[in-house]
Amino acid sequence: MEVWTTAAPYLGVAGMIVAFIIYLRIKAGDPGSAEMVEISDLIHEGAMAFLRREYSILMVFIAVVFVALWLGVDNHTAIAFLAGAACSIIAGFCGMKAATRANVRTAQAASARGQGPALMMAFSGGAVMGLAVASLGLIGIGVLAQVFGIWEDPTNATAISGFAMGASSIALFARVGGGIFTKAADVGADLVGKVEQNIPEDDPRNPAVIADNVGDNVGDVAGMGADIFESYVGSVIATIAIAATASIASMEVLAPGVVEKVARVSAMAYPLSVIMVGLGASLVGALMVRLLQNSDPDAVLRYSTFLAAALMVAGAWWTRGLLGLGTGPFMAVLCGSLAGIIIGLVTEYYTGGKPVRDLADASKTGVATNIISGLALGFESVALPVIFIAFAIGLAFHFAGLYGIGIAAVGMLATVGITMSVDAYGPIADNAGGISEQAGLGPETRKITDSLDSLGNTTAAIGKGFAIGSAALTALAMFSAYNSAVQLAMGGEKLVIDVTEPGVVIGLLLGAMIPYVGAALTMTAVGDAAFKMIEEVRRQFREIPGLMEGTGKPDARRCVDIATVAALRKMIAPGMLAVLAPVVVGFLLGPKALGGMLAGATVSGVLLALMMSNSGGAWDNAKKYIEEGNVGGKGSEPHKAAVVGDTVGDPFKDTSGPSMNILIKLMSVISLVLAPLFVNYGLNLF
Amino acid sequence: MEVWTTAAPYLGVAGMIVAFIIYLRIKAGDPGSAEMVEISDLIHEGAMAFLRREYSILMVFIAVVFVALWLGVDNHTAIAFLAGAACSIIAGFCGMKAATRANVRTAQAASARGQGPALMMAFSGGAVMGLAVASLGLIGIGVLAQVFGIWEDPTNATAISGFAMGASSIALFARVGGGIFTKAADVGADLVGKVEQNIPEDDPRNPAVIADNVGDNVGDVAGMGADIFESYVGSVIATIAIAATASIASMEVLAPGVVEKVARVSAMAYPLSVIMVGLGASLVGALMVRLLQNSDPDAVLRYSTFLAAALMVAGAWWTRGLLGLGTGPFMAVLCGSLAGIIIGLVTEYYTGGKPVRDLADASKTGVATNIISGLALGFESVALPVIFIAFAIGLAFHFAGLYGIGIAAVGMLATVGITMSVDAYGPIADNAGGISEQAGLGPETRKITDSLDSLGNTTAAIGKGFAIGSAALTALAMFSAYNSAVQLAMGGEKLVIDVTEPGVVIGLLLGAMIPYVGAALTMTAVGDAAFKMIEEVRRQFREIPGLMEGTGKPDARRCVDIATVAALRKMIAPGMLAVLAPVVVGFLLGPKALGGMLAGATVSGVLLALMMSNSGGAWDNAKKYIEEGNVGGKGSEPHKAAVVGDTVGDPFKDTSGPSMNILIKLMSVISLVLAPLFVNYGLNLF
Repeated sequence: MEVWTTAAPYLGVAGMIVAFIIYLRIKAGDPGSAEMVEISDLIHEGAMAFLRREYSILMVFIAVVFVALWLGVDNHTAIAFLAGAACSIIAGFCGMKAATRANVRTAQAASARGQGPALMMAFSGGAVMGLAVASLGLIGIGVLAQVFGIWEDPTNATAISGFAMGASSIALFARVGGGIFTKAADVGADLVGKVEQNIPEDDPRNPAVIADNVGDNVGDVAGMGADIFESYVGSVIATIAIAATASIASMEVLAPGVVEKVARVSAMAYPLSVIMVGLGASLVGALMVRLLQNSDPDAVLRYSTFLAAALMVAGAWWTRGLLGLGTGPFMAVLCGSLAGIIIGLVTEYYTGGKPVRDLADASKTGVATNIISGLALGFESVALPVIFIAFAIGLAFHFAGLYGIGIAAVGMLATVGITMSVDAYGPIADNAGGISEQAGLGPETRKITDSLDSLGNTTAAIGKGFAIGSAALTALAMFSAYNSAVQLAMGGEKLVIDVTEPGVVIGLLLGAMIPYVGAALTMTAVGDAAFKMIEEVRRQFREIPGLMEGTGKPDARRCVDIATVAALRKMIAPGMLAVLAPVVVGFLLGPKALGGMLAGATVSGVLLALMMSNSGGAWDNAKKYIEEGNVGGKGSEPHKAAVVGDTVGDPFKDTSGPSMNILIKLMSVISLVLAPLFVNYGLNLF
Repeated sequence: MEVWTTAAPYLGVAGMIVAFIIYLRIKAGDPGSAEMVEISDLIHEGAMAFLRREYSILMVFIAVVFVALWLGVDNHTAIAFLAGAACSIIAGFCGMKAATRANVRTAQAASARGQGPALMMAFSGGAVMGLAVASLGLIGIGVLAQVFGIWEDPTNATAISGFAMGASSIALFARVGGGIFTKAADVGADLVGKVEQNIPEDDPRNPAVIADNVGDNVGDVAGMGADIFESYVGSVIATIAIAATASIASMEVLAPGVVEKVARVSAMAYPLSVIMVGLGASLVGALMVRLLQNSDPDAVLRYSTFLAAALMVAGAWWTRGLLGLGTGPFMAVLCGSLAGIIIGLVTEYYTGGKPVRDLADASKTGVATNIISGLALGFESVALPVIFIAFAIGLAFHFAGLYGIGIAAVGMLATVGITMSVDAYGPIADNAGGISEQAGLGPETRKITDSLDSLGNTTAAIGKGFAIGSAALTALAMFSAYNSAVQLAMGGEKLVIDVTEPGVVIGLLLGAMIPYVGAALTMTAVGDAAFKMIEEVRRQFREIPGLMEGTGKPDARRCVDIATVAALRKMIAPGMLAVLAPVVVGFLLGPKALGGMLAGATVSGVLLALMMSNSGGAWDNAKKYIEEGNVGGKGSEPHKAAVVGDTVGDPFKDTSGPSMNILIKLMSVISLVLAPLFVNYGLNLF
């Protein structure tokens, strides 16, 4: 058993080395003409500048929380928090560096060598991020587990929750900040460029185009990387926490006939071993993409992901045996993995199937019907995922109790190395399209990058389905861990969070409200930031002589700067909402009301996230479907309606929707870490 | 004590007589020219035809459920169900008859006699509905209480829940059907008439104008009447049910020092006595409107409502003494009444204050920013009402336990006689405006009806705030009653609905999903029905010679018929969703999961309802604000953007949003009535 637990960091380091090799290979690729290099340097520089400024603001937050945890909870938790934040930041930097190098090389590959090499370059860029996320998770959790001695004494495991809290804190700010940046730039570039000035998307004369490309990186690469990192480590840590505190009776269920102490350590080691085989399986999947790079890209990405999932499941079966666990935990992993795939497919259907074609049809009768139908589509699209999440919860619990819910989430996320690569590939292909347009690489190249980009939209939708499904399970697992932590702090007294008690109901209502307020804050932030961007772009078109004629040069840096400042300023409020809400309710109303709040926030957040992501994805793809020549094609009235729908959907799918996952988990993990304080020092009104 | 319980039906009959006298006075009013009478007859006929067809479809549903309850539960419950359904139907008919007579007379009064008499006529039309709702509730509950002998033996009280179930069933179908009708007609009339043909609102050449006016009656009068009737009787019955089954210890809290049996009957009688004084207070308020009819209409309606509330609170204090109850129950009534007023004021702010002016400003940058800002406004607007609902729950519980939550809802709704009058006045004024436009009564008349109508928008928003706030409290009270019913069926064993149990979590998730699916169904229904209406209106403009020139006559009946058929067909699915979901979960997953489902549906439904109602109201008023000459005025680009926002908001605020209240209560009351069946015959998977 020692084998697994000590090998985790080494495997993580190996993964980082592979990521670094891939990065070197990307850098060795042909970046194309001097003009292309110049454009890509502008994007790289803007993205890196944003990250640096974002992280320096967050340093203050991290420092404050670190000191508070050190003084208020314990030094192990504080150190774990710091490590989680650091790993998240490093993962973001790695992914961003690779993505902003791969984008221009993807454009060049599409221009000089065709679709296969372009696919491979974009995928490699994503793979650096995917591997970094998976590897840093293994290193962080593996090292802390060792240092804190959780295998020797499971009660030491509580401090590891700090790691998840660090990762979640950074993730929320990164997701929200990146999301505001990318959508402000996108909306600003589109509304002035495409609508007012009638120039094509990504036209080099548009001052906001570089900012738009930077936004794809900071939002869809770095923001999403932090998001997935947070989900990944959150699921593992919640499962470890449940195993560490589970009753002796439940240990007998997980590992029948094994001595309790041994069974407990095995149960704690199992999530780590599942993500270890998951990382290996992801590497095999990535290799398959490389081997099949010249086949149909859709099929290649899809089947490589499925192959990795299958290998991971096989590995989960094998390691379960090595650890001496029963079949229950394995069955829960299988349930999680299957539920993730099914939810992904449902998401794909709602954002790419018949509903999208119906939505395009609805655009015929104007903007209003497009918006109403898109919203109705989003509302409808929550049903099947929720039912499958319910099934996953029910089955996972049936097979392995509360532990099963946690390990099912781990199963859903274990192949993050490949799913994240496929996810991050999308914005790189999108960027490549932008660069090829700006550098005038011609319609043939653009066609290749467009087809890669459109595939990226589907993979992103599936990725979001995975993220939301796993968020629901992880939040529940965190919730159980929170429950145990409170019971422990109350000296073993059972904590019943009964929804017939008014305190719990009040918590439920307040918790369910938080995602709505978060949505309001993030959507308003995008609106305000986009407004500033629109004004600046209009100003440049008005004041810079010869800009429209192509003789003047736009001031791209100013647009990047405006998006940066707006995003950094506006990310504070939603982030603090998630941090402070559980603290206030925990201290004032007590642990029961806080439990209700977590349940309410989870349920409401999952539903809103599904609705917003799917509506947004469907609006985007309905517009693309029309642009392909259906329902009147580009420039028709239905197309204009669909463009409005897409603009409304932008903050839905790329800012507000995805931040919900992190919001609910950040609230859960903060509650988990601070539970003893609430019990001992809270006012406890209910 | 006997005095109160036996007087309820008599007071109800007295109320009905007052309503009938008001109706006769309306009929005696001057209906104006032959043309006006013709228009109003068309509206009357369309509305009555819709109601008749709707109710004949519902007869089948009522018959099936009646038989099922008779055979499956008991004959008292079945009879109560029938009575509840019948009272709801009668209230709808009364209100509709009065409203469709008052509309034309309001137009004539505005034309011949000025604003004061017009206000009085419109208010009288609403008052018939308001008094009918309040009185029928008293008659129904009062008579059943007597017949079932609940004052002699409190255990007989369970059967009265059937009355609430009957009222809720009819209400959901009426709200959804009416909502689909009114919005299909509205959207169809606007999109073809105003946008495509460029003719003004309510122009007699528009074939859908009569249907639009019919829609105001079937949706905003009959639909809302059924809705409020359901809330009103639901809150009273839930409170009676809690009092009937509450523990002996909690009786001592409610009525210290009183013999338990006497205290229990007092506690059961108190909600009835509160609505009795509420009806009296409403009559005084209505009298005040009559006396002050020539003052500022906004102030008259507002202060008459406040006066009625103050009188009701005074009466609640007085009857509490007569019944020998402590101050606790009274304090809860006070909390409920205050919370209702505060939530109403918050709603007024979000749908009429600065946020609306900001929304109008956001329309400057186009449709997309109008939609994004409107949605963000809706998301934000949930925060304060939820916080005040939480306060009301906490305080009401503090003062009188679970009983307090129920009686707080009763306090919120006790002055329904006046609040409903004020509510129903809006669509009558709206109709009067339509009739004056079609009959060409000139701009002076139109100005009066417009100002009355715009005031009606605000009062309707406040009314919706009340409806949602009370729905949250009533659903919680029902939930407690459900809990007691399950415990009773399990032989006294305590039912703990612990959100850390997976079955409860699954219930929470599924329950929270139901309002989303309901929203999807109702929004799609409006879209489909509006599409049919648009096609018919376009066809008439194309095929009827001389229609645009004013020489041809539109076929208004066909448009009414299309809206009727579409509404009746599309109301089935959302209605059955609410009816079947708790039955399926109750039988399959068991009473705990069903408890989770009710909690999830309540929380999610309240939030969605608030969000949708407020977004919709704000979009409507932002458009009106622009039409008053701000931000560019009528016909400007911002105005066009605001018109789209208003169209999107129509199904939000008049179909999907308001149906949520009923949905959650219908689910709760069905669970309450069927609880013994689930316990005894369910599969109980969790």
